[in-house]
Amino acid sequence: MPGIRGLLAYRPETAEALMHLAEVLLRGESTLSRGERELIAAYVSRGNECEYCSGSHGASAAALLPGGAEQVAETLAGAACDAPVSAKMRALLEIASLVRVDGRLVSEEVVEKARVLGATDREIHDTVLIAATFCMFNRYVDGLATSVPDDPAQYAMSAAHLIRHGYQVPRP
Amino acid sequence: MPGIRGLLAYRPETAEALMHLAEVLLRGESTLSRGERELIAAYVSRGNECEYCSGSHGASAAALLPGGAEQVAETLAGAACDAPVSAKMRALLEIASLVRVDGRLVSEEVVEKARVLGATDREIHDTVLIAATFCMFNRYVDGLATSVPDDPAQYAMSAAHLIRHGYQVPRP
Repeated sequence: MPGIRGLLAYRPETAEALMHLAEVLLRGESTLSRGERELIAAYVSRGNECEYCSGSHGASAAALLPGGAEQVAETLAGAACDAPVSAKMRALLEIASLVRVDGRLVSEEVVEKARVLGATDREIHDTVLIAATFCMFNRYVDGLATSVPDDPAQYAMSAAHLIRHGYQVPRP
Repeated sequence: MPGIRGLLAYRPETAEALMHLAEVLLRGESTLSRGERELIAAYVSRGNECEYCSGSHGASAAALLPGGAEQVAETLAGAACDAPVSAKMRALLEIASLVRVDGRLVSEEVVEKARVLGATDREIHDTVLIAATFCMFNRYVDGLATSVPDDPAQYAMSAAHLIRHGYQVPRP
């Protein structure tokens, strides 16, 4: 099984906690849409050059966001300030990209900018935690040298399954 | 509440998953001792210069390892290859320090070296996941600018509580 799926099947005890975290953060109750949260995950994963995570979460974001694959590709290719998303989302992507490098880079100023653009404390909290979580997933997937799908179309198929069934431990 | 404790209390839904992960990885069934796993967590946190996480997990490692605070301080102060721990643990700390920077730095060679020194696949897997997990916790704690205890003795008191009761969501 490619990417994190093989790791989840290998170690179900940690997989349970990891999928619980992904489910709450990316699909649980939130004022950020599921597509926006998948976009933050994909953006951080692209920054970390994790092919599997940026491919899979990018496909989920593309399936969920109104602008589809084009909106996701444009966002992932550039700086947060140029992303074709709302001004609030651009500010949150900027925070996520700082967390990706080092949590201590998140300044009062970027947080205040996000607030002025309408981000709530909870949205800022969740953005930081999504970014931090993908710094974990990216390292887990790459540190154990998992494979990527042969056919990139598999990302879209997996995204469709995920959107329907949620983040679950794969059953062998 | 200092460090991650304030964040856990703020958002119990994600806290539940995060504490579940810490409990399984650091205290669940394993052929690595609890002290060794806390040492890996502290080592990565020190590398990321996260004062709260290196202080708290360093205190746990000191309470659990035979060499106590001195062994932990010496390990955290230097390179993995100089740490006053077993040769197998030095190899695992080296893997953890590579994961901390970028998962893709973990080479066949460092994994093979750990294996030759007696590390099992499961120990290597868990080392990578502990290192990745603390790249998340460090960013979460620092990205939201949490406070550190006024008195460093609080780390040892918290460690004693933790060793007895495990990783739990703080109840207000």
